[in-house]
Amino acid sequence: MRVAYLGPQGSFSEEAALRYFTNEDVEWHKSGSIVDVLEAVGDGTADKGIVPIENSIEGTITITADGLLTHDLFIEAEVIFPVSLNLLTIEGASLDEINEVWSIVPALAQCRDFIRQSKVKTRQFDSTSAAAQAVKNQERKDVAAIASRYAAEVFDLQIAKSAIQDNSNNHTRFVVISKKKCKPVQEQTKTMLLISPTEDYSGVLSSILNVFSALSINLSWIESRPTKKQLGTYHFFIEALNGMQEEKMKKAITILQAFGHDVRVLGSYGTTKL
Amino acid sequence: MRVAYLGPQGSFSEEAALRYFTNEDVEWHKSGSIVDVLEAVGDGTADKGIVPIENSIEGTITITADGLLTHDLFIEAEVIFPVSLNLLTIEGASLDEINEVWSIVPALAQCRDFIRQSKVKTRQFDSTSAAAQAVKNQERKDVAAIASRYAAEVFDLQIAKSAIQDNSNNHTRFVVISKKKCKPVQEQTKTMLLISPTEDYSGVLSSILNVFSALSINLSWIESRPTKKQLGTYHFFIEALNGMQEEKMKKAITILQAFGHDVRVLGSYGTTKL
Repeated sequence: MRVAYLGPQGSFSEEAALRYFTNEDVEWHKSGSIVDVLEAVGDGTADKGIVPIENSIEGTITITADGLLTHDLFIEAEVIFPVSLNLLTIEGASLDEINEVWSIVPALAQCRDFIRQSKVKTRQFDSTSAAAQAVKNQERKDVAAIASRYAAEVFDLQIAKSAIQDNSNNHTRFVVISKKKCKPVQEQTKTMLLISPTEDYSGVLSSILNVFSALSINLSWIESRPTKKQLGTYHFFIEALNGMQEEKMKKAITILQAFGHDVRVLGSYGTTKL
Repeated sequence: MRVAYLGPQGSFSEEAALRYFTNEDVEWHKSGSIVDVLEAVGDGTADKGIVPIENSIEGTITITADGLLTHDLFIEAEVIFPVSLNLLTIEGASLDEINEVWSIVPALAQCRDFIRQSKVKTRQFDSTSAAAQAVKNQERKDVAAIASRYAAEVFDLQIAKSAIQDNSNNHTRFVVISKKKCKPVQEQTKTMLLISPTEDYSGVLSSILNVFSALSINLSWIESRPTKKQLGTYHFFIEALNGMQEEKMKKAITILQAFGHDVRVLGSYGTTKL
């Protein structure tokens, strides 16, 4: 089985992928961006992919949400991964010397307080590990990467300061995606729907949520993403705390479709905590 | 009156600020980041500020939403601004030579298709105009800034390609903020609430939206932002299509508070289209 992830060596995605896909004969496919992971799975280069969809500090990873909107893919599992962000430098650099930090946008966003307080500049890289590798290669003492402990090991960097994220209880939620709807590997405890309302936005989300509420379906996540056609029009990601094997989920979808909304079942899956 | 905006010369915020605050004796306060604008208004350095809160392609500007969560500020107006993003280079550079584009994160996100198709690298700056200025200063022909037509004029750059954003109907919604709740300058047609539920997330948004629906209050915007304490817990921004002068809005707030939710009225305002 070929598995794609956002993957220079040492990335959080790599660590999550290695820890999730165990006991399997996996051929790893390292992609340069989240969109590349989705495309590798979409065009069959990879059988499965693992991508971050939400972080407890930064919120939704919009690149992934927008990618799920435009690619025809299914979610087959959810993986909860504890994240600790560290400031990595070359050996011998001191914290005072650092005036620029390099990382991927969500990681920079998760360390907003640290960045503001230490008045350092930021530079955007495609992944935390690409930033770590660049710090290693350039041998500059005035820059640091924001990346994982795992990346420090991989690139032989020192941890100048650990756990610099705004909140210590930081988790990232990954989803495992595939091109084909396949047999769930775990009990299906959640279902992700993508609802594109036919009507105007005003009032429509309330009417959609009423359907779930009337059927006693609890929701764990609601995210609106712009249709990109006009300000104020949205698609809704709705994650329900029931699997598709349950009759009431099928009923909910039938009702929503009868209202005229476009409903895609992105997947029904269980949760793995790493 | 002192007005703060995200302000190296030539930014979209500057253009919006100059076009919104007309006929007034304004002392401009240019801030280095969105958080700096919020802080300048919060600590009294500026009387008002103007910050982007949503874009029709990128969605919510989460830095602004999170800033409104943590700062004690009011929204007094909404400003809708049409955005066209252009590729700016120094005189004589050709489109083929460009292998790196510089801009602020939301602008890079709004040009995702262009960036992917042209296989250029990206580098993050604090504003579109900081990127434009850097392109001008460095005199490199292999880099381009993504910024406004206005920035091209300000920094004497050429427009190598115009309107490179993913969708041509691109608008950014700004909000005008102040420290004090002040008399609305326009008819109050909208109200922004920030609701922090007391209970668990599951099902609570539905019960909140039911209150508005029961009172025939239509909503124009719903955004959830993580509490940053635990994955799956959120604050909700809810924008209603009614002003606070209307009896039913007061009723909605009383009911939501009776449910035990924490409700902050961020503002009641009208819309200006630039």
